[in-house]
Amino acid sequence: MSDLNINPEKTKNILVEFLHTDIQAAGFHRAVVGLSGGIDSTVSCFLAVSALGKKNVLGIRMPYKTSSRESLDHAQLVIDQLGIESKTIEITPMVEPLIEKFPEMDAFRKGNIMARERMIVLYDQSAASKGLVIGTGNKTEIILGYTTLFGDSACALNPIGDLYKTQVRQLAGYLGVPDVIIQKPPSADLWKGQTDEGEMGITYESVDRLFFMLVEQGKTVDDCLAAGFTRDFIGSVFSRARRNRFKRALSPIASLSGKPLNEAIFDQEIR
Amino acid sequence: MSDLNINPEKTKNILVEFLHTDIQAAGFHRAVVGLSGGIDSTVSCFLAVSALGKKNVLGIRMPYKTSSRESLDHAQLVIDQLGIESKTIEITPMVEPLIEKFPEMDAFRKGNIMARERMIVLYDQSAASKGLVIGTGNKTEIILGYTTLFGDSACALNPIGDLYKTQVRQLAGYLGVPDVIIQKPPSADLWKGQTDEGEMGITYESVDRLFFMLVEQGKTVDDCLAAGFTRDFIGSVFSRARRNRFKRALSPIASLSGKPLNEAIFDQEIR
Repeated sequence: MSDLNINPEKTKNILVEFLHTDIQAAGFHRAVVGLSGGIDSTVSCFLAVSALGKKNVLGIRMPYKTSSRESLDHAQLVIDQLGIESKTIEITPMVEPLIEKFPEMDAFRKGNIMARERMIVLYDQSAASKGLVIGTGNKTEIILGYTTLFGDSACALNPIGDLYKTQVRQLAGYLGVPDVIIQKPPSADLWKGQTDEGEMGITYESVDRLFFMLVEQGKTVDDCLAAGFTRDFIGSVFSRARRNRFKRALSPIASLSGKPLNEAIFDQEIR
Repeated sequence: MSDLNINPEKTKNILVEFLHTDIQAAGFHRAVVGLSGGIDSTVSCFLAVSALGKKNVLGIRMPYKTSSRESLDHAQLVIDQLGIESKTIEITPMVEPLIEKFPEMDAFRKGNIMARERMIVLYDQSAASKGLVIGTGNKTEIILGYTTLFGDSACALNPIGDLYKTQVRQLAGYLGVPDVIIQKPPSADLWKGQTDEGEMGITYESVDRLFFMLVEQGKTVDDCLAAGFTRDFIGSVFSRARRNRFKRALSPIASLSGKPLNEAIFDQEIR
């Protein structure tokens, strides 16, 4: 990659091949995708259908009582266009008893409970349908950590996690994702009027340009300052990336043996 | 370690130091522990209290309607003995609506839903009390994968994950864990009469001896056969370890850039 523009055909082929190979290697041939109506889960679902065929992909809509009607409708557009099997499972009955128990609970805690409840539903449907849960997190949100640990970030494998948000948009256009889904402002839909960019106070377009220089091109902070990014902007993005680093790593385990587990042990043949 | 016998004093010191250092490094000084009444969560809680003081540890009991009364009582023993703050949050109201939606649901799916709902409650209490979730999984169950992904295995950091089950038992004795907790058969308490060893068809004592030879001493499969382990036993343990390997790793992300994210980028100073 020399800039944020991708070759969508080549990109699609790589991602479809990844899904096809990894799902088969795990001994599966089916997939489950949580459909929020947003662009990320839509693109993941399109890729899953290309990799496995529409008969092998199950789309799950998981609205909460405050979810926008639009989100649900957009997810249905995807289901209809792809011709996949789908289920709609309301999370409200599972989420409400916990929220009601703590009247002081803020929107942050509520949002995490919702995201994690969706993980429960998705993994349960994964077990029921013998399909792997396909990830829907893009590289921008992974680096920013704009995601709920053990919630929306939970998946068996993720086809779009090395694509920046603006690149997901390019791929979506190529894949034929409905325009209304591509054009709307990205939102976790945790409360009315929420947008990712409004909540974080940054635009994906500028974050992606910054990440591209730093991560893909190996430029220095000084290069980025020279390119017009402000100290404040870079600082706030770095602080977010650092603060949420734990979401990108396995939880630390106290070491007594002083060495990591050698997984090859269990691959030995027993003659 | 030359055999499964640990030096409990030295072990305790290392694990307490780990908790102390890592929790502080993350910018916290409090901890949350889910107390099942079993030996693992009890030992983790004892260690957390040693590391942070009893005022900084919150114990959470999360019974389901079929949980044994004994589990709840044993967790209370721990709370009382340590003198920590505690909460009891029933998961039944959150779990039931999903279970009722799928009358065909088997015990395996139900168990995973319960384990993950407990994760939701624990992480919500983590946010509410600004305490880190302390892990309670031992090395034996981690290698066997006898755990629910994003459920009981979910934690911020784990003090006992490099201790085999039989070593946790030794440490428990040294720490002064109530004898009734040390002596009872390990159980996930997902249904009446369940025991880990009954469900898996193996004893921790023999699995630990096998793992110690293979993992800690680097012995070969032939050595283990010569030591009296049967092909069937080794085979079933290996197959379990391989099948659940995904629970010990981050989910794969399709790679387009061909390189892992360089986290050091975000540690740069911005002058």
